[in-house]
Amino acid sequence: MEITANNPNRKTWLTVKENSDFPIQNIPFGVFITKDDIITIGTRIGDFAIDLGALHQLGYFEGIPLTDDIFLQDTLNDFIADGRKTWRLVRNRIADVFDVKNSKLRDNAEHKDKIIFRMEEVEMQLPVSVGDYTDFYASKEHATNVGSLFRDPENALLPNWLHIPIGYHGRSSSIIPSGTPIRRPVGQSRPVEGSNTPGFGPSKLLDFELEMAFITTVANDLGERIPIEEAEDYIFGLVLFNDWSARDIQAWEYVPLGPFLGKNFASTISPWIVTLDALEPFRVANPKQVHEPLPYLKKEGNDSLIFIYKWQFNQKALLKPWFVILILNTCIGRWHNS
Amino acid sequence: MEITANNPNRKTWLTVKENSDFPIQNIPFGVFITKDDIITIGTRIGDFAIDLGALHQLGYFEGIPLTDDIFLQDTLNDFIADGRKTWRLVRNRIADVFDVKNSKLRDNAEHKDKIIFRMEEVEMQLPVSVGDYTDFYASKEHATNVGSLFRDPENALLPNWLHIPIGYHGRSSSIIPSGTPIRRPVGQSRPVEGSNTPGFGPSKLLDFELEMAFITTVANDLGERIPIEEAEDYIFGLVLFNDWSARDIQAWEYVPLGPFLGKNFASTISPWIVTLDALEPFRVANPKQVHEPLPYLKKEGNDSLIFIYKWQFNQKALLKPWFVILILNTCIGRWHNS
Repeated sequence: MEITANNPNRKTWLTVKENSDFPIQNIPFGVFITKDDIITIGTRIGDFAIDLGALHQLGYFEGIPLTDDIFLQDTLNDFIADGRKTWRLVRNRIADVFDVKNSKLRDNAEHKDKIIFRMEEVEMQLPVSVGDYTDFYASKEHATNVGSLFRDPENALLPNWLHIPIGYHGRSSSIIPSGTPIRRPVGQSRPVEGSNTPGFGPSKLLDFELEMAFITTVANDLGERIPIEEAEDYIFGLVLFNDWSARDIQAWEYVPLGPFLGKNFASTISPWIVTLDALEPFRVANPKQVHEPLPYLKKEGNDSLIFIYKWQFNQKALLKPWFVILILNTCIGRWHNS
Repeated sequence: MEITANNPNRKTWLTVKENSDFPIQNIPFGVFITKDDIITIGTRIGDFAIDLGALHQLGYFEGIPLTDDIFLQDTLNDFIADGRKTWRLVRNRIADVFDVKNSKLRDNAEHKDKIIFRMEEVEMQLPVSVGDYTDFYASKEHATNVGSLFRDPENALLPNWLHIPIGYHGRSSSIIPSGTPIRRPVGQSRPVEGSNTPGFGPSKLLDFELEMAFITTVANDLGERIPIEEAEDYIFGLVLFNDWSARDIQAWEYVPLGPFLGKNFASTISPWIVTLDALEPFRVANPKQVHEPLPYLKKEGNDSLIFIYKWQFNQKALLKPWFVILILNTCIGRWHNS
């Protein structure tokens, strides 16, 4: 099925700023509370929040097989479980409803009043109920930087990194929407030279990591493998992920079982899930690998996505921008939502 | 409130073998499917499964504030969320109903037929829906053994182990009831000396670990700490936990982020949750610590439980019994269920 929603020439009848992150070609999915305290699944075009529950109730998804309450939910889990065909039909229809040439909703003031809100009128929620979450060490530059920070700068990248996706399980219950206030964690740090007593108190080395998180759908049964060619079928979309890190706590506790309290006090995600479909035009060739991958990790085609982040430094110290350009192989970063 | 269910002199009118793990003083909680395909929360006395949903419907919990459907569930999560006072009232009442001196159910054949099953007539399920799961490296002997196996036998125990509870997040979606068939995992192993290509295939070093898991209830809000004196209030009960481990996969992948694919293909738990209340008589003094713990980890009293396991070797090789006697501080082993 064609992804008509990606048509780069489409214009919308909504007013969208030139440099908006939410042009009519994006159509992400999220969950918000309206000023009338109603929770709904929605999308965003420009600075407008679109209530998909209301859009569905008013008949705009006619012909697409959807249950009546599919958008009247406090998480996207059920919609995501419906699978890629449904995601694509819904996204294509939204693009069509808001197309500058489509007058059906554009000229219906009463419907528009029920469906369209300004972003400042709604409160964004966590978009999914997260069942499990896996954090992959997917950037070679990041793995090298962290290796230099915690271990030997001469042998910063460990040999296994070049052969297998290195990852660990994170705490899913501390994933919260971006903007939620976070309390600086308290914990132990390495004893100073000559002492046998660890330090204890609020972290003095609070750091962040800019990552991409993949929201996956119901996948394999326990014991069944997913071939690498099919891995993408299970990815619904992506969010920005900020893995807040207390580096002093992490440096003392992380051997031999990996990061724990230095990482699990909070992880923030952007509330809009950008679909993998919407990112199709942004595929690039994979980075060249040092060693030939083993067959089960080898796949033809362009599986990487390139993101360029712009940000402003508003902290003078301790916040280290690990990535400016982040390249992730979509087949290795997985984040379970079910 | 007194734990009358723990009365060591109580006898039951049910026939229970002398050396049963399920005397009237145990009264664990679990979930099972009856031969009529009905799922219910239950308990076990001797080799009898007791349907608590039926017991409740027939009025045996009169006077205890419980919702009508509290036991007609496929997990214990809601019952556990009701808190310790409710757990204790329910357990005390069950002990009373099955007391040899109580004729109410004993002499009602029709009720007994609806409430009591033989264990072979029911199929045990996973007792809780697991939200997050944390694996603590709680045994000094085990940490020393594994350190010798993977690293330097001379410095097997790392310095941090003596100061902080070392732990990591596990994969909650691969926790399954004991007895479920498990597929041997396939993965990479360390390249042989002189080669640059890792091994790949079914694990040749499949191992198990015998652990205790603590099922906890709804606890602190994000950012709020639980003082060590209150930590036990959040523990509902304990299960045996078998952390299946592919040691060859683990040895290659575990630096620097800890165990991952070598551990997350399956973890099995015993289906009956033994309450912390039932284990009160088995408290022992804590093992002496090498260093004085920091104040936030210090607590007076007997917080340890002692378990002695008996088992038979039915595998000639590769299955290493890490523990014969396992001592766990109840305050550091935590396993989230919500």
